[in-house]
Amino acid sequence: MGTPGAGCCPGRMQSSRSRPCSCPSLKLREVASMYFTLVAAFLVILVVALQGSVPRQSDFPYKVPLDPQGLLELSWNVSYPEQAVNFQLLIKELHFGLLFGMSDRGEFENADLAVLWSDGHNSYFGDAWSDAKGQLHMDSQQDYQLLGARRAPEGLYLLFRRAFSTCDPKDYLIEDGTVHLIYGILEKPVHSLQAINVSALHGGLQRVQLLKPNISIPQLPRDMQTMEITAPDVVIPSQETTYWCYMAELPEGFPKHHIIMYEPVVTAGNEALVHHMEVFQCAADFDSFPHYNGPCDSKMKPERLNYCRHVLAAWAMGAQAFYYPEEAGLAFGGPGSSRYLRLEIHYHNPLVFKGRRDSSGIRLYYTATLRPYDAGIMELGLVYTPVMAIPPGEDSFILTGYCTDKCTQLALPSAGIRIFASQLHTHLAGRKVVTVLARHGRERQVVNADSHYSPHFQEIRMLKEVVAVFPGDELITTCTYNTEDRSRATVGGFGILEEMCVNYVHYYPQTQLELCKSAVDPGYLHRYFNLVNRFNDEEVCMCPQVSVPQQFYSIPWNTFNRDVLRSLYGFAPISVHCNKSSAVRFPGQWEKQPLPSITERLQEPSPRCPPSPGAQPAAPVPLHLGRLRRD
Amino acid sequence: MGTPGAGCCPGRMQSSRSRPCSCPSLKLREVASMYFTLVAAFLVILVVALQGSVPRQSDFPYKVPLDPQGLLELSWNVSYPEQAVNFQLLIKELHFGLLFGMSDRGEFENADLAVLWSDGHNSYFGDAWSDAKGQLHMDSQQDYQLLGARRAPEGLYLLFRRAFSTCDPKDYLIEDGTVHLIYGILEKPVHSLQAINVSALHGGLQRVQLLKPNISIPQLPRDMQTMEITAPDVVIPSQETTYWCYMAELPEGFPKHHIIMYEPVVTAGNEALVHHMEVFQCAADFDSFPHYNGPCDSKMKPERLNYCRHVLAAWAMGAQAFYYPEEAGLAFGGPGSSRYLRLEIHYHNPLVFKGRRDSSGIRLYYTATLRPYDAGIMELGLVYTPVMAIPPGEDSFILTGYCTDKCTQLALPSAGIRIFASQLHTHLAGRKVVTVLARHGRERQVVNADSHYSPHFQEIRMLKEVVAVFPGDELITTCTYNTEDRSRATVGGFGILEEMCVNYVHYYPQTQLELCKSAVDPGYLHRYFNLVNRFNDEEVCMCPQVSVPQQFYSIPWNTFNRDVLRSLYGFAPISVHCNKSSAVRFPGQWEKQPLPSITERLQEPSPRCPPSPGAQPAAPVPLHLGRLRRD
Repeated sequence: MGTPGAGCCPGRMQSSRSRPCSCPSLKLREVASMYFTLVAAFLVILVVALQGSVPRQSDFPYKVPLDPQGLLELSWNVSYPEQAVNFQLLIKELHFGLLFGMSDRGEFENADLAVLWSDGHNSYFGDAWSDAKGQLHMDSQQDYQLLGARRAPEGLYLLFRRAFSTCDPKDYLIEDGTVHLIYGILEKPVHSLQAINVSALHGGLQRVQLLKPNISIPQLPRDMQTMEITAPDVVIPSQETTYWCYMAELPEGFPKHHIIMYEPVVTAGNEALVHHMEVFQCAADFDSFPHYNGPCDSKMKPERLNYCRHVLAAWAMGAQAFYYPEEAGLAFGGPGSSRYLRLEIHYHNPLVFKGRRDSSGIRLYYTATLRPYDAGIMELGLVYTPVMAIPPGEDSFILTGYCTDKCTQLALPSAGIRIFASQLHTHLAGRKVVTVLARHGRERQVVNADSHYSPHFQEIRMLKEVVAVFPGDELITTCTYNTEDRSRATVGGFGILEEMCVNYVHYYPQTQLELCKSAVDPGYLHRYFNLVNRFNDEEVCMCPQVSVPQQFYSIPWNTFNRDVLRSLYGFAPISVHCNKSSAVRFPGQWEKQPLPSITERLQEPSPRCPPSPGAQPAAPVPLHLGRLRRD
Repeated sequence: MGTPGAGCCPGRMQSSRSRPCSCPSLKLREVASMYFTLVAAFLVILVVALQGSVPRQSDFPYKVPLDPQGLLELSWNVSYPEQAVNFQLLIKELHFGLLFGMSDRGEFENADLAVLWSDGHNSYFGDAWSDAKGQLHMDSQQDYQLLGARRAPEGLYLLFRRAFSTCDPKDYLIEDGTVHLIYGILEKPVHSLQAINVSALHGGLQRVQLLKPNISIPQLPRDMQTMEITAPDVVIPSQETTYWCYMAELPEGFPKHHIIMYEPVVTAGNEALVHHMEVFQCAADFDSFPHYNGPCDSKMKPERLNYCRHVLAAWAMGAQAFYYPEEAGLAFGGPGSSRYLRLEIHYHNPLVFKGRRDSSGIRLYYTATLRPYDAGIMELGLVYTPVMAIPPGEDSFILTGYCTDKCTQLALPSAGIRIFASQLHTHLAGRKVVTVLARHGRERQVVNADSHYSPHFQEIRMLKEVVAVFPGDELITTCTYNTEDRSRATVGGFGILEEMCVNYVHYYPQTQLELCKSAVDPGYLHRYFNLVNRFNDEEVCMCPQVSVPQQFYSIPWNTFNRDVLRSLYGFAPISVHCNKSSAVRFPGQWEKQPLPSITERLQEPSPRCPPSPGAQPAAPVPLHLGRLRRD
């Protein structure tokens, strides 16, 4: 273990960049404060071994860069038996410490943080939280457990552990779905944790699915082949956000195959820039599609590319390979399917690097030996229609779309279908999405839920548990929206400022049912407009010739009109879209259908608290990081 | 310490009544089960001393009989520094054990229980909970801490302790206001706690204010006199419920005095029958009132007694003496006040005892040396009007009454008033009542709250903290109702099946403001009736000549009509009653007033969990009660 240095800035952790050595001038008050900090506050002295065994790569199978430069690299694993996440954070350039943590939507205020800090002499590790003003506080219960710290040529490895649920109200509850990770860099020595205000720090956020499902990898066939759909050495535009479109095509006469797995191919060095990638198959209605290689929003992009929307594969940062279940594969190739594929890559380049070249994409693993079942994709949630709207100024307004018992009765095979993966989708106001399976009016199972959903992080997620859906079951998809920054109503639709509430579920065996969604009955919405008009003494024109969005835009929003709209959506009959394709309905009466009535809700699971030894006393852990210095 | 007996039923706890000695015939399976119970389950052996110091009466200042025979007597004290209640339970006749605990509204299911049980040989004590079916389970965290057990001539004393909040989700949270205590008698040996189903037991409930405020008793003057207003040796009717009315009168020419304290006078032996008592002063408008001594609901009761409604004193079971603050007293006597008093006693006689005689009542302590301030009583909440209604079938519908800033601005002195006591009042559907003080749109302080309110337990409660109310403050009273057992709407009004939402606050110095309440604007309610009519395609007559209750009764209740009524009450302007007496308003415009807008709510206090040593492992505590046997 190293001894503190004795130079100009003793014990200071230095960055590998050359920086002027500025000594903090210590006033009496500061010295007193440091003394107090050192003597009074740190009751428990725990020295962490800097040596020790090097964790293997396979110990932390999931990896994501935290910052756009990739100077902070997080790897982790999940222990479901222990209900805990083990983190390994690689800090390539350590200054005076680092904050790492989680918050509801990536904000630095009201966050739950693990903090490594140095006062210039000594380094400490502790569990902290930030208040609504960004001020840090030591947590009364220490739930980020430091497991070790290790110096390596590439930087400092910090190993720590956190239970999913700590039962400390100041702590973040780690749940399924998106977790907003945040990081902050301490660029000056800090004399105590309380001296840190996170709002003023250099830092950022990274979204990941922390609780990856614990799925056993299916056996792969011997005749498996691979195909890479990758960008052709593209120059990443020097702008923050680019959606890049590249058209690829299958060989002529390519017969039907099953995609059984796919994985990302990310150009080395671009790990922090490639945010997400999708491969779409084009519509079979067109014989050919133009070749194109350029930004998706370019004026030069041929319009026909909009007909390439059938998802074959999707990957987002932090995701691993995607495996189809052993009994099923995603059909591609063969007659009746297009040879044309569209690769879309979202480059996230906030530091506006110039001239970076990239050949990232997706590697498909496929087989000619077809598996027993074709996999299918079904769309659940709300129809894209303006009748479903969100008032402005709402912090959490809820809309619900129903796939009714009548539709599943008609469209599903008696043996049912198995949902194994799901991709949630909303536009910019979406904050939460959940789909629940109900049977005989009783909620049975969550299909997929994301309480920290972000429209900027739409992965296809393998489900922890395959969900069996039988004829007569109901699939209820609920989206929560935030419109606090909007001044007029947000209506449903295709536009980026309109909204959607969709869950694309991946299932097998494939059925004819492509779309099972709903929207409020338009006649009842019309009654609502009438009611609002009369109740509020408004002379707003609610005439029938005015479009639904215009009627919504002209409503004088107040709590009554808002509450009554919410009541309407919770009461009025629905129009059900139980469709073979987006335009062809199953035969039957689908208008003015009753809302499914749910008599029994699923219980919120009560959080399991760690046994008391897990929680450590509220004192920071001093670290001997002397050997870290590179001077 | 006694050794287990060796008679016919070894070690059996016997009741003092003579019962045939029936030996439980032990089958092999039962023996095996007992063996398992004794050997495997009871890991911790803790012997409680049966001797030890006798706690003094003053150690447990609060006392209440639990059962109508008075065989179970609970005394307790409250330690605010330790946030815990210490209980002393006197069991006059112990059979095979006893359950004591708490539940939301006195039900035996989903209850939190301390259990003393005997298998015929040994006795055990443990913390348990009952599930929705009444089945008992040992609690994983033992939070009823046994402090001791002691045999005395009058029975067995059990001493135990319970933190207000245990942070165990299976435990009841002890809060201010009413607590529903429950008890059950084990009349047969039980081999394990799991063998008990509480729904099948002989038992009952008792409501008390467990967390009595910790108020220092004001100095009493030397010239203090007493006056007993007591029933004149009444024969308690042999029926479950009797409200007894007895007229008393002050001496002629009795000058103005201040009541500074009062306390109950309960005839010895009737402690379990006298449920609550109130002394009312009659209206000064009448020169004389008839003498009357009989049931309040008798046809023989003179109608004029209905004009005796001004509360002078109120007591309910478990309450102690009531003290006025040192600066104030309740005026009675003197010109302008009636000489006539009405005593009302609620006898609760579920076992239908016959021929019990009773002379209970209230002892008033008063002084001729008037204190600086007269105390006053002000009525907050909702006006008694049918415009405030509750739909049928609701498990918790909320109505709110407002005392607005405009009214307090006009009616309160600039130095403000001090509220020191409060009596909450609803009719039979009331479940919760709370009054909150708001200033500049921000909630500041809870005046009085009862989350387990029962209309059968309406005490005047001293406040833990005196609440200062200044001109411009708002007092917001919220009542929660349950109408699950009703098939038509419940409207506001005087009838027992109509509802009220009232908080009678006791304060000083007395002002002219007697009543500060509100109700929804009737014009807006009319719009609601119209809206409901149109929206639901109903041909219900909502014509203006139909009364408001009739209009409410004819509404076809569904979630929409219910939700919109709730939205209406949360939005529509109000009619404010800012009155000098029930008929005389302060001058001003009081119709169509805006609802107070609250921008900042009080935070729910997060429960303080006991330090870990408080919680004990999940094993019952064996007790040596051998010496208890009276054979």
